[in-house]
Parts: sequence; C-alpha cells; structure tokens
Amino acid sequence: MSEISTLGEFGLIDRLTDGLKNVNDSTLRGVGDDAAVMHYESDRDVLVTTDLLLENVHFDLTYVPLKHLGYKSAVVNFSDIYAMNGTPRQITVSLGISRRFEVEHIEELFSGIRLACERYGVDLVGGDTSASHQGLVISITCLGDARRSDIVYRDGAKPTDLICVSGDLGASYMGLQLLEREKVASAGMKDFQPDFAGKEYLIERQLKPEARRDIVEELAKAGIKPTAMMDVSDGLSSELMHICKQSHTGCRVYEDRIPIDYQTAVMAEELNMNLVTAALNGGEDYELLFTVPLTAHDEISKLKDIKVIGYVTEESLGCAMITRDGGEIPLKAQGWNPLAEKQE
Amino acid sequence: MSEISTLGEFGLIDRLTDGLKNVNDSTLRGVGDDAAVMHYESDRDVLVTTDLLLENVHFDLTYVPLKHLGYKSAVVNFSDIYAMNGTPRQITVSLGISRRFEVEHIEELFSGIRLACERYGVDLVGGDTSASHQGLVISITCLGDARRSDIVYRDGAKPTDLICVSGDLGASYMGLQLLEREKVASAGMKDFQPDFAGKEYLIERQLKPEARRDIVEELAKAGIKPTAMMDVSDGLSSELMHICKQSHTGCRVYEDRIPIDYQTAVMAEELNMNLVTAALNGGEDYELLFTVPLTAHDEISKLKDIKVIGYVTEESLGCAMITRDGGEIPLKAQGWNPLAEKQE
Repeated sequence: MSEISTLGEFGLIDRLTDGLKNVNDSTLRGVGDDAAVMHYESDRDVLVTTDLLLENVHFDLTYVPLKHLGYKSAVVNFSDIYAMNGTPRQITVSLGISRRFEVEHIEELFSGIRLACERYGVDLVGGDTSASHQGLVISITCLGDARRSDIVYRDGAKPTDLICVSGDLGASYMGLQLLEREKVASAGMKDFQPDFAGKEYLIERQLKPEARRDIVEELAKAGIKPTAMMDVSDGLSSELMHICKQSHTGCRVYEDRIPIDYQTAVMAEELNMNLVTAALNGGEDYELLFTVPLTAHDEISKLKDIKVIGYVTEESLGCAMITRDGGEIPLKAQGWNPLAEKQE
Repeated sequence: MSEISTLGEFGLIDRLTDGLKNVNDSTLRGVGDDAAVMHYESDRDVLVTTDLLLENVHFDLTYVPLKHLGYKSAVVNFSDIYAMNGTPRQITVSLGISRRFEVEHIEELFSGIRLACERYGVDLVGGDTSASHQGLVISITCLGDARRSDIVYRDGAKPTDLICVSGDLGASYMGLQLLEREKVASAGMKDFQPDFAGKEYLIERQLKPEARRDIVEELAKAGIKPTAMMDVSDGLSSELMHICKQSHTGCRVYEDRIPIDYQTAVMAEELNMNLVTAALNGGEDYELLFTVPLTAHDEISKLKDIKVIGYVTEESLGCAMITRDGGEIPLKAQGWNPLAEKQE
C-alpha cells in the first residue's frame, strides 16, 4: 500500500486517470487544464446534474466495497440524465479523501467509476482531489445531451395519462436492511460470513444499481415520448408527488400493480415490515417513473419490464393509492430525507 | 433560528433558490428537475470545472464569515473558466450540512454564492443538499463557454514568449497567516477584537477574492490572445511549472519583477517570512498567469494591472528564477498541497 501524500494531488490524479480514453465526439479536452472542453451538436441541448455522497450518510464502508461505491456513484448520476430522456456524456469527479485511505483504495474506487463510464459510454473529463479530515466525500457532476424535442421534464403530465414504472421497487431498500442486519450481527466478530443466500438480488440492487438506459432506448424505438419522467431515487411516493405537484395534477396508483420482486416480499416478511410501504418509500431504486398519453396504452403494454401502475387525475383529486380492497389512501412523501436525520 | 430538519431537503432548496432569475440565454431550465438544461450557440464550446471545499481543510469557520465563504466558493470556479479565456455561465452547488447549522446559516452562505453569481452574470441551475455527519462540504461545478478560437490552454507556451501575471501575489497567503495568528491570540477570549488596521487588503484577498474577468476583457479588447494561461490558485511557482511541463518548455522569471503589494511585504517582515517565497508559493491569489508572443510586448506593457515577469525558454533550460543579484534558483512546486497535510 502507498501513502497518498507521497504522490501528492497531481501524482494521484495522473495515476487515477492513466490510460483514460474519451469516447464521445462532444469531448474535446478532458482532464489536465483549468476546465474540460466540450462541443455539442447544434441540435442538442446540454443537461447537467450533480450528486454529493458522504460517508456514513449515503454509504457505509463497513459493507460497501469501494469499487461498487464508485460504480454506483457514477450510475446514479447517469440515471438523472436518462430521466430527462437524454444521454450521459461526461462526468467530473471530486473526492475528499481521509488519511486512512491509501492510493490503492482510491484506485479501487476509481476502477468502479471507470467501469461505469465504460459501460455507459461516458467520458471522465475532470474533477478535484483533496484531503478530508472527515470521511470520504464523493461529488460527481454529469453532463449529457438530448434533442430539445426529446427532453422530458417532470411537469408535463396530463389528466388521463397512464403512470408507468420500470423494473421493480423496494429491493434496494431491503438490501440495505439486510446489510445493516448482518453488520449488527457481525459486530466484533472476526471472519464473520454474512448469509445472503437467496437474497442476492437485494444486495445487488443496493450495492450495484444500474441506470435504465435500456428503457429510454426501448421507448424511443417504440416511438413513445413520456409526458413526464423522473428516476426513483427517494421512493415512488415522493417522486409521484413531485411529478403531480409540478404538473398541477393528482394521481391514482393501484396497490396491486406496484411491481415487487419475490425476494423483496420474502425479506419484508422476514423483517416484519409492510411490503407496500417499503416499495413506495424505500428509495434508491433508480427505476424510471413516467407518464404516457392514454392513447399509448396498447404500445406501452407490449414493452418488457414496464408496468402501468395508475393514471393521472385532475389536481383537485389529490394523490392517492387505491388499495386491494378498493379503498383510497393519500400518498405521503415519506421518502428518504437525509436532512431530517437526527444522527451526528 | 430554524432547524433545517423542519423544512426537509426540498423545503430548504425552495427557500435557498427563491426568486432566482436566470440571466444567460444559454440557460433553458434551472433548478427543479432531474437535470438543468442549457443550449449553447453552435459557435461556442462548453467549459466545465469543479471545486470541492471542505471545512477545516479549505476554510475555518472560526474566522471565515459564511457569506464570504459562499462568495469565494463560487468565484474560485469562475476564475478557472476565465483562465480558459471563457465566460462562466452556470453553476451547480452541492452542500453537505452538519447539524450545527440552522436554515439561516445556509441562507447566509447562499447569499454569498448568489451575490457572486449576480456580479459575474452566472446562473445557479442545480445542486444537491444533504446532511453531513462531519463538517460543512461545498462542491461547486461551473459551466462556461467560449469560441473555440478563443480558448487558451496550458500547453501553448513557446520559447521567447513573455510570461505575464495580473495583480499582485502572496497577499491572500499573508491574509491567512494574519487570520490564523489572530485566531490563536483570541483563543478562549470573549469579545476579542482582532487588529487588522493597515492590513485590510490582505484580509480581503483571503476572504473575498475576485476572479479576473477584467483582465480577460482587457486582453480581448487589446486583441491579444495568450498562448497559454491558468489561474494562480496553488502558487505562482507551481502554476508556472504546470504551463512549462504541458508546453514542453522551460522559463525564467525575475525575482524583482514579481508583483507584491506593500501590505504583503510589511506582513512578511512582521512574521519574519521570506517575502518572495510567500509570493511564489502562497497560493489562492486567483490572478491570471499567462504567456504572450514576444511581439505583443509593446501592447501588453500598456495594459494596466498586468506585469511581464519573465520569458519562456527551451525545455532543456528548466524553470528558474533569476535573483536580484543575477543568480539562478530552480523553481520548485512547493504549492499548497492539501493531500500532503498531516492533520486529522
């Protein structure tokens, strides 16, 4: 293991960015100057999103491998660009590194970031590196592009639109519960072997989520442009309410249509948690939540891994879930709110 | 004072971004969706730069007012865009907020960021807000634009080019020394009044630096395009060596030509520090360091607040300072290296 201070900031950056190749035509200059330089085709708008990840708020290095953390940190940003119906093109990565990390740790983290970039065709074009007297700090900004006519905002939903969601919900949250449980169980034990048998999907959803590029491509191929879209990072309930608030609409979602994986259900049972609550509020699903015109019903029903879960209403009707027995429960944005946390 | 948890993330963001108006044509959508949306004229390249600022590494809230901190955090990013000979247009701001901060503290910080944006004509288009279990974390990314033919990189310096620097150097570093000294002197004392009389310039340079937009505009007006340029954030010596390394050149700078303010000199004397060392390595000057062809000598000499401090040589001659007595001292990149710090 090598101490970071022996390399210095510029030495470390050289090592982390060694062999980087840019794959996007829009990237003119990457790492190595005061700023990176891009040029986007004149028919493209530029998208920018950013995420800040802090140790012990967003991740716990007790059970999160650094390579997975790097991968996820990049992917959650790509997810925001796809949620605009765009294509991620470039990222910048800023790191605050505490002294317990060696060069090899940061290389591990970066190998995850670089793997994500490779898989999603994104160029790493810049960043900043600093010591941190606290924990690990990761700040990633992602640039993407889209034709203006393709961009989907949150505010375009109209009454009668169908509400759709990709994949399934709640698995990442259950994965987190599982990891936390095993962390408690392993406390103070050496060579503890956590038991994840039959729950691999939950762990993968939590530690190594993917952004739904495939859904964006599938929709484009089918000629369907959503009227509103966002990714599910804070929980379906919270995100639905964002779309409805910004679109000045209400909504109805059917409890029995919310897509939930078998492993998620088993885990909720095991933990004695309400399954639907977990699926509605768990967060970190990185699925796409979107609305399409009612006329797209037949087309959308044919697409794989997309489920219609409800419909958009007039604003005055509010946001509610229709339960299995036909009752209505108002949706609440209980979503993951790191600012309300009481720890420190 | 109001607790941040009562507002939640979205409530806080609403409050911080209340009344924001975008001034750049290139900003199509700002805060409020998965990503901000921009469109740049087809003759413009897009520049992106990012800076991560961590409490007790980059700033000490014992003596840095939050509004100044916000202002400086934004300005140091603008400085990087000017250093490319571009114009800053948009920023995103991510904050990690520890629980000792109230809503009003963060509003104070944001008022500094917004003031900087207003003064420099930059739009605040997005960001991320989170709890921090550690200190305050500020991550800012700045987008800018420039005509491709106007962009100045670090690698274009040619032997015989003149080396120029704007303003003066070392004052910010001396301001930091002064603030640190008063912090020590005030430890444990109530109602301590620090004595900054006659040293206001040093304090201002440290707490509220400006980016040299005026220099970029002045050069454009005079029809001078630098061959290489960067801003002085880590110290003149370190930055000069970056330009020379990337341009495959050497350089000579004259000790007696390094611009130093009177207050900086007095303070160095008081602290028994080597003045030239401080000016070469102090950092955080946010002045522009650039090279111009020898033929621009007469033109550049007429411009105010720009000084020719040396010239570019063949690479084999290395980087050196010519002392007052005509000797040569090799330049060293002693610049501020936060990764080499031993604290934690």
